[in-house]
Order: sequence, then structure tokens, then C-alpha cells
Amino acid sequence: MLDINKAIESLNWDKEPKGLYEPIGYALASGGKRLRPTLAITAAEVIINGGLINGTVIDDVLPAALALEVFHNFTLLHDDVMDKARVRRGRPTVHVQWNENTAILSGDQMLIEAYKLLAQVPSNKVQRTLEMFNEMATGVCEGQQYDVDFEQANNVSIDDYMMMIEKKTSVLLAYAMQIAGYIAGATPAQQEALYRYGLHIGLAFQIQDDILDVYGDPKTFGKAIGGDICANKKTLLLLTAMESADGETKAELLQWLMAVGQDEQKIAAVTAIYNRLGVREKCEAVMEEHTAMALEQLDRLPRNEAAERLRELAERLATRKS
Amino acid sequence: MLDINKAIESLNWDKEPKGLYEPIGYALASGGKRLRPTLAITAAEVIINGGLINGTVIDDVLPAALALEVFHNFTLLHDDVMDKARVRRGRPTVHVQWNENTAILSGDQMLIEAYKLLAQVPSNKVQRTLEMFNEMATGVCEGQQYDVDFEQANNVSIDDYMMMIEKKTSVLLAYAMQIAGYIAGATPAQQEALYRYGLHIGLAFQIQDDILDVYGDPKTFGKAIGGDICANKKTLLLLTAMESADGETKAELLQWLMAVGQDEQKIAAVTAIYNRLGVREKCEAVMEEHTAMALEQLDRLPRNEAAERLRELAERLATRKS
Repeated sequence: MLDINKAIESLNWDKEPKGLYEPIGYALASGGKRLRPTLAITAAEVIINGGLINGTVIDDVLPAALALEVFHNFTLLHDDVMDKARVRRGRPTVHVQWNENTAILSGDQMLIEAYKLLAQVPSNKVQRTLEMFNEMATGVCEGQQYDVDFEQANNVSIDDYMMMIEKKTSVLLAYAMQIAGYIAGATPAQQEALYRYGLHIGLAFQIQDDILDVYGDPKTFGKAIGGDICANKKTLLLLTAMESADGETKAELLQWLMAVGQDEQKIAAVTAIYNRLGVREKCEAVMEEHTAMALEQLDRLPRNEAAERLRELAERLATRKS
Repeated sequence: MLDINKAIESLNWDKEPKGLYEPIGYALASGGKRLRPTLAITAAEVIINGGLINGTVIDDVLPAALALEVFHNFTLLHDDVMDKARVRRGRPTVHVQWNENTAILSGDQMLIEAYKLLAQVPSNKVQRTLEMFNEMATGVCEGQQYDVDFEQANNVSIDDYMMMIEKKTSVLLAYAMQIAGYIAGATPAQQEALYRYGLHIGLAFQIQDDILDVYGDPKTFGKAIGGDICANKKTLLLLTAMESADGETKAELLQWLMAVGQDEQKIAAVTAIYNRLGVREKCEAVMEEHTAMALEQLDRLPRNEAAERLRELAERLATRKS
């Protein structure tokens, strides 16, 4: 089995000028789930017969899979500057470890490095791969901008929110699947199924994230419970509550949104409103819908051991506790 | 004749989310010399017979020419954030007009937009074009990092400096020529000549910039004279002075470098040292050498009206006053 972490480690950042390349190595060495390249390689394995690894095909797909991981880490690097985040995966962020200018410039170079990896896919597939990758990258930047815009807006609808998380999170997973499938020789219908699988698990994943932030077990969930509530984040839970609350409950909710410095009471009160309105169940239903739509795509793909892993992944995401 | 400005204006930035695309339109509408796409189109015209515009070839080259201009403006956008520059081409910079986060994110999207344009070159030429573009973009980021590193270093040699300006400024001009020539059907030898023409005019241009900062006519030179001296910038003039000064003059120069808040006297004193050491003449000789090397490349290219324009451009750069 291909070791994604090993492939990422084999990228060489021991180059001059060190001030440009060291932060890239640092950012990429910090681990993470490697979800995107894993999805890409699995998509390729689904397409090639029986899910067995065909060395040549995987060699063709690997540069694109790595490009997706490098791109993802580039977005984290620049997002951390914009959010002034100080810790990422248990270590100081690049702009804290070095400085902001380094995070900007090394981030730019990381984006260029992703395109360098893309240039390594088979010649006759570079153009279409580049187009899909550009489409994906544009979606991620647009999603980030909508996320920023929505923080200030007070008329964000559930549809707006779903569009935003689709762009910010899901298109990267969707194109990870499609690009890898395309390079591995998937038909257009298979490519679409792969794309939609990635899109829907991405949406399910993000919604589960919103739910866990309120209803997660503090022992297994990585972050403090209620963080989104304290920050007034327009999650699916809050937007669902706003849309389903009657006048009185809505007023109560709005009052709590304005509360400052009473975090514990605020979390308890807003959670109580969510419970009263059945927000958790409503959001879980939406999440399960997306999980089901992801699983449906598997009917349009070859049945093999790799496809089985996609099934398990979708089911695991929907029942995860952390 | 192809109107570069019109082609740039025809790029559409009236898209959602406005917070992402408006700053891109703003940055690209601010004018500038459009040197890079002009060089690219001229290189293509040199290659296609007689320098006459062959519509098809220019259509093939145009997306790459525009990608180079979009890329160049992306670097200005992020550089202005890093340098905290407040004005660019007579208008507030993007991070002043909007904010830093906007400049970072819209800059990222601009880099992606450059790659979107690249994906439009003829299919069979995308991979090689992408490779050259990535090489160029990497050079620019490395050059920027060296520039930052050299500000702190006190053992920068003339060779270091030439390497830095080659990466930071010249490779973009060099690859503008080569990429366009490649797409227009240049032979490998012609591509190399185009590359080297761009490289050497870039170096000549940057050296002339250093000279004009001290010896320019305040009436025609856009900036205040002596800005580099006040900022202790390690220009070719300063590095040449350091390398050619004897012990006593070197000590005098170092003393002036430490002077703070006596700008007028500092400019006069350092200029006097430059004059004593013949620094201007030495730098002009280096600049003329690069101009000559650029002109030499024309012998390896078709002789036509477009090549004549390259000759004039190189000669004009060497004698420019602003």
C-alpha cells in the first residue's frame, strides 16, 4: 500500500534560500489526516480494476495527490495569518514561528509548488488537470471570502451557508476525487460520481463539525465545547435555530448573541434553545442526507475493495465523535 | 497592432464575491508599463515571419502574455503588504484601500487567475509552458526572499546582488520572452536567445534604476533622489563602493551608513564618495555590458520589424532618464 506520509516526506525543502523553504517543510511536516491525497489515491484505486494498486497509474496520480495536500496546507498557512491563529496541530503557526511576511511569501511559494507537482502528471492530461485544479482553488478562495463576508452579514440564509462550506471545504475533496479518477482513466460518468462523493462527504463532515462543537464529548472532541456559540459563529445550528424559532424564542436567542463575557451561561442557554427547537436532530438529518448522497455515488462506480473503503469512510465520518 | 491594455481591460472581474474580485480589478486597472506582455507579444512577432501579426499565433500567445501581467501585479500586491507600502502608481495600495487580509486573499486568487490564463494556451503546449512559468514564479519568490535576507546581512557581495536581481526582476522578463517564443514556434536556440535578451535587459534596467536613484534628474526621475542612500539599500553602487574603497574611505562610508536623521548631508557625503571612487562609471559599464549582451541575442533571431523594436527597447533602457 502506498504510504502517503512517506511520499510527502520525500518532497525536498532543504533548499536555498532557507527563509523561503524551511517554513514550507515545517508546515507540511505537522501531520494532519492527509485526507485529500488519501481520497485521491483511493479514487484512482477504485477506477483501476479491483482496487489493486497498479504502479504505473499510481505514479501518474501521485503528483496530483501531493499537489492537493500542498495546496491545502498553503490555504491553512494564509488562513492562519488572516485569522491571527497562533497554534496549528499543536505547534506555533508559521507567522508566529517566523513572522507574517514569511508566512505570506512562503505560502505563495507553496501554491507555486502545488502547480509544480501538477506539471508532473502525464503530458496529455496536464491541461484538463490544471483546469480542474484552478476551478477548485478558485472555489476555496471564494469560499474563504464568503466566510469573511458572512461574519459581518446579518441575513445569511441556510442556502448561503451551504454554498459557502461547499466552496470552502467540499470542492477540494470533490476535485481530489475527480482529478485522480480522471488521471486513472475514469469515464465522465465515473468522474462525476467521484466528484459528488467528495462533495457530499465534505458537506457531511463540516455539518458534523458544527454539531460536535456543541454536542461533542469534551473528552474525545479536540476543542472546547461551545466555541462556536461564544464566537457567534453562523453555523448550521445557529442558522437552523434562527429559521425555526418563533418570535419569542428568536428574541431570546438574539439577546444571547449580544451577550459578552458570560461564556458558560451563554453556552448553556443557547444549547437549551437548540434542544427546545430540535436543532441537533434537524442538522443530523441534513448530515445523514449528504452521507446517503455520497454513498449513492458508489453505485455508479466499480465495486471493489477500494470502493468499500470509500463506503466505510463515509459511514465513519457520519458517526465520528471527534 | 494588438492593444495590450485593451486585452487586460477585457478580463472580467465583475464577479461574486465582490470582496475577492474587486481588488484584483483595481490592481490591474492601475496602469503601469505593461512591459511583460508587450515583451511577450513582441517575442512572438519576432518568431513569426516578418514580425507581421499572425492572428492565430497571437491568439495562442495572448493568454500567456496576460498571465505574466497578472502574475506581476500579484507580486506587487503581496510585496506592498510585506513592505507596508501605502501608494502604488499614484493610488492607495490594496491593503490600504481595503485591508491586509483582502490583499492576501485577493493576491492568492490573482496567482490562481494567472494559472487559469495559462491553461488556455494550446493543449500540446500547456505542460511545457506551465513548467517554465513555475520556474519563473519560483525565481521571483526566491529573489524576494534573498532581497529580505540581504537587508540584514553585512557580507553581501556584488555576485550575490546580481543573483538576487536576476531572480527578483529578470527571470520574469526572460521567461516572458521564452514562453511567448515557445508558443509561437521558436526553435530551442531561438528560445534561448529570447530568454537571454530578457534576462540582460532586466539586469540593465535594474542597474540603471540604482544609478538614477543617485544621479537622476529630480525633474524627470519619478522618486526623490538619494532614497536608496538614506535607506542604506545595498544597491550595486553601494556594493561597488564597498569593494573598491581603501581602508580610510571604507571607514568613512561605514560611518555615514550609521548616520540617522541627517538625510541631506548623508546623500551629499555618500555621493561624494561614489564620485571619488568612480562608482557611477563602473556601474554604467556593467549596465552597458548587459545591454550589449541583450543586443547580441538579436543576431540569433530573425531580422524583422519586431526584432528592430527589441533593439530600440534595449537601447532606450540604457539611456533612459526616468
